Amino acid sequence: MIASAPTPGVRRPLTVAAAQLGPIARTDSRAATVARLVALLREAAGRGATLVVFPELALTTFFPRWYIEDPADLDAFFEAEMPGPETRPLFDAASDLGVGFYLGYAELVTAPDGARHRFNTAILVDPSGRLVGTYRKIHLPGHVEHEPWRAFQHLEKRYFEPGNLGFGAWRAFGGVMGMALCNDRRWPETFRVLGLKGVEMALLGYNTPIHYPPVPEHDHLQGFHNHLCMQAGAYQNGMWVVATAKAGREEGCDLLGQSCIIAPTGEIVAMASTVADEVITATCDLERTREIKDHIFKFDLHRQIAEYGPITAQRGAVPPD
Amino acid sequence: MIASAPTPGVRRPLTVAAAQLGPIARTDSRAATVARLVALLREAAGRGATLVVFPELALTTFFPRWYIEDPADLDAFFEAEMPGPETRPLFDAASDLGVGFYLGYAELVTAPDGARHRFNTAILVDPSGRLVGTYRKIHLPGHVEHEPWRAFQHLEKRYFEPGNLGFGAWRAFGGVMGMALCNDRRWPETFRVLGLKGVEMALLGYNTPIHYPPVPEHDHLQGFHNHLCMQAGAYQNGMWVVATAKAGREEGCDLLGQSCIIAPTGEIVAMASTVADEVITATCDLERTREIKDHIFKFDLHRQIAEYGPITAQRGAVPPD
Repeated sequence: MIASAPTPGVRRPLTVAAAQLGPIARTDSRAATVARLVALLREAAGRGATLVVFPELALTTFFPRWYIEDPADLDAFFEAEMPGPETRPLFDAASDLGVGFYLGYAELVTAPDGARHRFNTAILVDPSGRLVGTYRKIHLPGHVEHEPWRAFQHLEKRYFEPGNLGFGAWRAFGGVMGMALCNDRRWPETFRVLGLKGVEMALLGYNTPIHYPPVPEHDHLQGFHNHLCMQAGAYQNGMWVVATAKAGREEGCDLLGQSCIIAPTGEIVAMASTVADEVITATCDLERTREIKDHIFKFDLHRQIAEYGPITAQRGAVPPD
Repeated sequence: MIASAPTPGVRRPLTVAAAQLGPIARTDSRAATVARLVALLREAAGRGATLVVFPELALTTFFPRWYIEDPADLDAFFEAEMPGPETRPLFDAASDLGVGFYLGYAELVTAPDGARHRFNTAILVDPSGRLVGTYRKIHLPGHVEHEPWRAFQHLEKRYFEPGNLGFGAWRAFGGVMGMALCNDRRWPETFRVLGLKGVEMALLGYNTPIHYPPVPEHDHLQGFHNHLCMQAGAYQNGMWVVATAKAGREEGCDLLGQSCIIAPTGEIVAMASTVADEVITATCDLERTREIKDHIFKFDLHRQIAEYGPITAQRGAVPPD
């Protein structure tokens, strides 16, 4: 029991890429955006990646910044099928290259009764083109009503329903993969639930405005907070995290970049240094999750679930009298 | 609703000190150690502090590093009454100075049936000398059995029972105070439960060896991990954190210093720069917790407790088939 490192000779290396996107204009066509994704995919494959993580809502501009009244205008940002004619080239290129990917997009589901449901969704596709899993964003940030005092809106709570598939974990790419989206990363419950499902690598896309209208005095901390939450989540659950931004000045709104790959120690091992289309890669040994999961954070030895009741029993804070 | 900052003119400033201790030798008397605490208390009071946070197990050397077979030898590290004759000078000095304090110590409780119970405990005392609250450490690290392969032991799981008082929150010092101890800070559940109890300032003492025998290849990350977990906990719950180390080379074992005071933004606003007895202070506006608690992490608006079930339902990880 003295040895702590992975068993000598046992490695599970996975070369991953975070494929950061610069801005997407409202008028950009899907075809043009998908062509950018394919170019990033090719670059990542050329650097040895077999899994490429794209951002949240990677096919369009970040449309929750506008109050959109016409349903047809809103629908234009959503995908009713995946792949559809416009996204098929991404799937074809990935299969040709033998690369899997995580893709965030706005999903429109029409139920058998004709009801329409909108989700902020991510999918995981394996190198053979098989759909491994679907995740629908659980922690929707922002607000429901039009708030004209803001420099821009953040209407995710208006345009999307909360995800109805829970947090998932899937065996793929030689390990246990999990997914989350953007604001999910700020909530420690996200990483903890993934950790309790045995996730070894969490994949996550984000669109994060630098300016937060309710508390602008924190704007200079956006980059710090982004990394802080994910580094803590990685370490506290012994998992790799691959996090990819849509970055740069998009339709007048500055979006955070700093896409990164984080080790189970919480260390950032790769980071984007532009706010444009950019590929970063790292070779991640999934066996290294054991250094954390089997020791300092060995859940079944150390967690004290009888003391955690309020986490699931109450939504808001209840201060003492 | 545009304004986010605390209401103009509304401030709840509290000047706090982290009173870091350098090493305590096994042979040091309680009287000598209490005299050091009193000196630190006086220094803190002189710098305007009305609340002073001492380390975990602040009255003795960190004895769980030894395998102790004789119960009398073990008992010598414990307090059967608080205050007792040897600790009374600290209480007297605090009352004289009008300063409250948090103190960690090894607590021996003898039940009415004669059974003896040992806890790793912290108490909070207000400036009038009144006991505000008691906390008994919930997340005991280390191991139960003697493991001679280690350079030193970490027998907290042998010498202490898990805390039986839960996580508490107390109205004192103009706000809502919470307590935790050492390894508790690594678990996001600790800060989340405190956050759900409305805590505005978490007080925490620690003894953290730089060397972690099971995974020595992480030793260089001890300082990073210490701050990472607490900064994330502060930010994700919108609370101040005051964290105080027992530091330096104690009985041949190097203990981490870097005692710190962390803002609700996650920023470290004061940090010790020695591994000896040292006072750091900060004036903390408890009203600033609102910047976080009422916005980005407004729990009752954003938490999705129906999705958090595994956190309280299962102790260990359950990977997919």
